[in-house]
Amino acid sequence: MVYEILKPEDIEKKSMEIITSELNGRTWPEPKFSIVKRCIHTSADFDYADNLAFSDNAENIGVDLIRKGATIVTDTKMAASGINKNKLSDYGGQVKCFISDEDVISEAKARNCTRATVSMERAAAVKGPLIIAVGNAPTALIALYDMVKAGKIKPDLVIGVPVGFVNVVESKEMLMELGVPYIVAKGRKGGSNIAATICNAMMYYKG
Amino acid sequence: MVYEILKPEDIEKKSMEIITSELNGRTWPEPKFSIVKRCIHTSADFDYADNLAFSDNAENIGVDLIRKGATIVTDTKMAASGINKNKLSDYGGQVKCFISDEDVISEAKARNCTRATVSMERAAAVKGPLIIAVGNAPTALIALYDMVKAGKIKPDLVIGVPVGFVNVVESKEMLMELGVPYIVAKGRKGGSNIAATICNAMMYYKG
Repeated sequence: MVYEILKPEDIEKKSMEIITSELNGRTWPEPKFSIVKRCIHTSADFDYADNLAFSDNAENIGVDLIRKGATIVTDTKMAASGINKNKLSDYGGQVKCFISDEDVISEAKARNCTRATVSMERAAAVKGPLIIAVGNAPTALIALYDMVKAGKIKPDLVIGVPVGFVNVVESKEMLMELGVPYIVAKGRKGGSNIAATICNAMMYYKG
Repeated sequence: MVYEILKPEDIEKKSMEIITSELNGRTWPEPKFSIVKRCIHTSADFDYADNLAFSDNAENIGVDLIRKGATIVTDTKMAASGINKNKLSDYGGQVKCFISDEDVISEAKARNCTRATVSMERAAAVKGPLIIAVGNAPTALIALYDMVKAGKIKPDLVIGVPVGFVNVVESKEMLMELGVPYIVAKGRKGGSNIAATICNAMMYYKG
């Protein structure tokens, strides 16, 4: 079996060249193009060239928020672990995920609601610029929707890329009509890996 | 916007029914069917109905290994964080990931090799039943290939689902000719989420 021996940075460079080539001339203004390419890179799924939706200037808003030391709150530990926390901390930012916290679990049980809902309430208490990244739970996006409508939270950007078959499409459509800046993967696709890679793409963008 | 209010367990049940329905009568013997469905559930990508490849009886070997308290070594923290560690510990098993260990990082630098390579060497020192789950780094699979050939490691099952555009397809083909039990997502697709969900599917299987 023949394989190429390349340094890690060269593997990534070559991967991006292959993706660009297979996009057949389709292109986006930066940093949107970087986000599209990284979503394809992390999934090998070119559907992300078609399903990513950005509210007006959301990609630049995201880059600016990260440079200002934004906190990124994720709905899963998996998304949190995929975000480059060393790089984020260079800008003064941090990642938080409340979903497995003991007090979140016990409060969700006591109130008979989802842990995702309680997690979003915890996010509302975060100080400073706030990015919410949802890669798994449509319930988190739906809870967020209700809280924004009720004036209980005001995220600066929401990355809404839950994956799945029940309430996922609906939760994304709700986000897109909410009036907060968003980056969404329309349809059923998404995931914790996609949520993390969108954060990383904005973090790595050098423009 | 109309969405359904369902309990988490009902959301999963309904998701699986939708997946089964959209598979249009395609079916697999269990626990293979559960694995296929969970890969689709975690990605919303029906390509996994076509690209998953199992060596002879690998799915049952995996279920048995987990029930015997196997250690699962992953190539990324993200895959590790997606595996249900509480459930795994019920069987006496644990998840290990060496990729970010200080000594692995420094040794890889000193030897001018990848951290994935050194991680696989650490995996070789694990006692008892061993599952290697690779969701990201083809270099990990390639290092594993060389080590198995050299008699330096003997995993009981390898989940080979790295994702990407460079050496990924090749690394999976190498694994499939290695003579160890495998579960592979052929082609470019895969990921840490897919690696984790295959482990969870085997863990949750009740047959």
